[in-house]
Amino acid sequence: MGKIDPRIDVEEARRLCRQAFERAGLPAGDAAMATEQFILCDLFGIRTHGLRRLSNYVGRLQLGGMNPRPKIHIDSKLPGVAVVDGDDGVGTVVATYVLNEGIRRAKANGIAIAGCIRSNHFGANAPYGWFACEAGMICISSTSATQTMPAPGGRTAVVGNNPIGYAAPRADGRHFIFDAAMSVASRGKLRRARDLGETIPAGWGLDADGSPSTDPAAILDGMVLPVGGHKGFGIAAAAEMLSAVLFGGRHGAAIGHQFKEPDRPSGISHYFILIDPAATVGRAAFEAEMDVYCRGLHAGAPIDPKAPVRVPGEAAADRYAENLAKGLPLDPDELEKLRGLADGSLKGEVPVS
Amino acid sequence: MGKIDPRIDVEEARRLCRQAFERAGLPAGDAAMATEQFILCDLFGIRTHGLRRLSNYVGRLQLGGMNPRPKIHIDSKLPGVAVVDGDDGVGTVVATYVLNEGIRRAKANGIAIAGCIRSNHFGANAPYGWFACEAGMICISSTSATQTMPAPGGRTAVVGNNPIGYAAPRADGRHFIFDAAMSVASRGKLRRARDLGETIPAGWGLDADGSPSTDPAAILDGMVLPVGGHKGFGIAAAAEMLSAVLFGGRHGAAIGHQFKEPDRPSGISHYFILIDPAATVGRAAFEAEMDVYCRGLHAGAPIDPKAPVRVPGEAAADRYAENLAKGLPLDPDELEKLRGLADGSLKGEVPVS
Repeated sequence: MGKIDPRIDVEEARRLCRQAFERAGLPAGDAAMATEQFILCDLFGIRTHGLRRLSNYVGRLQLGGMNPRPKIHIDSKLPGVAVVDGDDGVGTVVATYVLNEGIRRAKANGIAIAGCIRSNHFGANAPYGWFACEAGMICISSTSATQTMPAPGGRTAVVGNNPIGYAAPRADGRHFIFDAAMSVASRGKLRRARDLGETIPAGWGLDADGSPSTDPAAILDGMVLPVGGHKGFGIAAAAEMLSAVLFGGRHGAAIGHQFKEPDRPSGISHYFILIDPAATVGRAAFEAEMDVYCRGLHAGAPIDPKAPVRVPGEAAADRYAENLAKGLPLDPDELEKLRGLADGSLKGEVPVS
Repeated sequence: MGKIDPRIDVEEARRLCRQAFERAGLPAGDAAMATEQFILCDLFGIRTHGLRRLSNYVGRLQLGGMNPRPKIHIDSKLPGVAVVDGDDGVGTVVATYVLNEGIRRAKANGIAIAGCIRSNHFGANAPYGWFACEAGMICISSTSATQTMPAPGGRTAVVGNNPIGYAAPRADGRHFIFDAAMSVASRGKLRRARDLGETIPAGWGLDADGSPSTDPAAILDGMVLPVGGHKGFGIAAAAEMLSAVLFGGRHGAAIGHQFKEPDRPSGISHYFILIDPAATVGRAAFEAEMDVYCRGLHAGAPIDPKAPVRVPGEAAADRYAENLAKGLPLDPDELEKLRGLADGSLKGEVPVS
């Protein structure tokens, strides 16, 4: 039998995480919002953005890099658009306010965009997309991030590895949820290669001087490259345009680094576009047709019969069901930190990575 | 001196193209709309989607695959959303109606989405993005298309090589315009390799049986692969979701092939999301900040000093200025067809490709 992480009951994990956030100064409602983002990531199997991040979030709250009690301000000049000032709050809290405001406005207008300035790391797109789907909404979203990718032909990081989210509800509940960063390979994959002493394929990144490298450690100190060259670059740049430039947020070099400058508010911006299919074909008809559409994407035999084709969101939906029933798998180390942060015996940590 | 294509005055090209569309049955206003899409593509240097396509469009009009006098119907249940029935008209005409309706609604609401059913090939995203930018709007757009790409792990084409567009106005007029299909390599690149007798890198496509191939001819008969595997696939699938499923259009295998079934309306859908920065930071402030943002994307020395970093839209803006001044470069063959289609001495052609 291989190494299997212990599982923790979802309600127990939720309770501990809320307690840790409240201990770090968040009001109960905000602590619950921030907790849901971690829990959903772990339920979906996106463990890089789940409870593993709690210690870092608490660390930044303790250092003053995030404001535990922000005065979140929502402004609007036209019915379909909301501009939110996050007052340097926890990104997952600010983003949840932004999402909810967008859903509310989309119900009235058919579509809305809500975005923010002065937020922090918002986690992954997928949980927000899932909330939108449960409310019957299509969601398009992204966030700004620290500069980590060069332009094609460039040797200096100028854009963040901004993740792109698309979500649409399906009648069968296995919502279409796409969430991917625009680099060829994630920093997580590079760290794994570094820890295993492996080299990586050419084209994944540049070293700190901007020279191509196959040494994962050198790329971690340097830059990851965008997928498809100008394609990934353009999409990542558009994400920052829609998140930051449109809403008046910091962009480019002005964005803070959550790990290297943990005590400084990052000045991150996010946006959510919500679309209500009630304004076109109707909610039930749309969700039923999404099932038909997604079944069509499965057409034909897979290359490897043991690896069936997956439509975005289906693997996450399966893990969600399994983890909800069996409990969240957590590293023993993560579980210990979760308990310690909840009861106050541990302080938050801020990695430099 | 290398081979240089002759140039034609832009006004002269415009006049001839309108004449050809009117001869094919379009009302003068619609002929002008369809003409502008070709002219703008050629001005931007997107010659694959410029006047080169005129003969094919006229051919489909002559065969009944496109309706020269559609009754375009616009419906709306909520202020931010318009649903357009294109009545099988020329895609560039239908899409222009859709775009204009979206711009009108975004001015009132801050954001709008307009989409359509029963349209045809709409050309490229870039000209629509440019129109939106000239109106002070941000534009996100895409279209459905014939199935040409498999899912990751699949050996059957299930999704179109749907191009993604993002556009945002800049104060200096060199608008941020991103427009790219989601395949690793375009069919145009494959045709060039085939004609030169070259093999292509692994990973560009599968043959008709779904086996990997480096023979461009085999891939042209088979499928192109999405950039970044699940990344390009997910973005292309989301584009069809937003274009077709949301608006009640045909999707997947139900979409017609413009070349193989030229006499059958394709049942294509497109969507445009328009966002008015007047609803956030204000138009002038946004456009000025876009200049600052785009200058930031140029930071640092390029790897090759002779190949400076380009932000999406800058190369097209330079070609636009040059082609507007010097005239449109056209193959002698294209010019002959343009004149023949305008004066009625030539019929439209429908390639099987």
